Amino acid sequence: MPKLVFYTATTLDGYLADPDDSLAWLFVQEQDEAGPLNYEEFIRDIGAMVMGSTTYEWVLAHSSEVVEETGSAWPYDMPAWVMTSRTLRPVPGKDIRFASGDVRSLHEEMVGAAGGKDVWVVGGGDLAGQFADAGLLDEVITYTAPVTLGAGRPLLPRRLDLALVETARNGAFVASRYRVVGPGRW
Amino acid sequence: MPKLVFYTATTLDGYLADPDDSLAWLFVQEQDEAGPLNYEEFIRDIGAMVMGSTTYEWVLAHSSEVVEETGSAWPYDMPAWVMTSRTLRPVPGKDIRFASGDVRSLHEEMVGAAGGKDVWVVGGGDLAGQFADAGLLDEVITYTAPVTLGAGRPLLPRRLDLALVETARNGAFVASRYRVVGPGRW
Repeated sequence: MPKLVFYTATTLDGYLADPDDSLAWLFVQEQDEAGPLNYEEFIRDIGAMVMGSTTYEWVLAHSSEVVEETGSAWPYDMPAWVMTSRTLRPVPGKDIRFASGDVRSLHEEMVGAAGGKDVWVVGGGDLAGQFADAGLLDEVITYTAPVTLGAGRPLLPRRLDLALVETARNGAFVASRYRVVGPGRW
Repeated sequence: MPKLVFYTATTLDGYLADPDDSLAWLFVQEQDEAGPLNYEEFIRDIGAMVMGSTTYEWVLAHSSEVVEETGSAWPYDMPAWVMTSRTLRPVPGKDIRFASGDVRSLHEEMVGAAGGKDVWVVGGGDLAGQFADAGLLDEVITYTAPVTLGAGRPLLPRRLDLALVETARNGAFVASRYRVVGPGRW
């Protein structure tokens, strides 16, 4: 059964980005690209992805290196959904689908398109939370940077009970994989 | 040189307690009391402790088991400082000192009283932040529970650059020790 996985970096105090959506605190950290829970192995099992509009615009705004390498502002070849209530510009030649509304029907569509592989929730935290609310979020994988921000974009603004599956150091990060158990009943 | 160490449990999204100051999410988690970064080994090296008024009142309100075992509502024998601007009730026969104002002079006093051992910042997050602001916080040790709350009392509401010293699984938790590098310069 394909899984829906929220794979993300976060600060120790649970922020995905600072209040200005900056990830400067993240890019200075060392990581072992062949180490535990590394991106390369993760993405090999991913067949579709979904993100919110802020994440989408962030990728496009920060993709100058990607443009140089591939000639496109979009680094992914798999089908990607962008949840948005706004009109956003597409990327020529890329399979980017804009969607809104309930995440349940979207989930079915994504799993269908993923061809048996898993689906990646790129962010932000509220979108991952919407999938969790619907009981559709299977795993959370966090790369915790040795940083506190005190304010910013929340990791996963929900009361959720998880279960630690594996954890290990990866460079400057603590990389951990969790199974989503369900809503917190404390 | 004695260290000032913030040793605390936290949720994956960086909360010390929920908005009602509940730790119910924490007490259901399994831990290995002889495992990595366990409390017993930690407290052996501690000679003094400091906490905010909310933490102090929480300990007193939740100490019925302690009262049964020891006859006192206060489980600690070492000198303890409580940072508060309010008048709080003391615990008979215990070395509890109420303080307010700048944390620098307090730090000197605590280190003096600790007799060469380390000093524990019990919480909350803002008190740990005040010591960090003054450049006096040496380490942060977190027990990260497999839980998100989405709201609550913040772990460490500051922009801080840390360095991961060690990390390991302890029961349901990820236990990690960080050295405080300084203010985040990103």
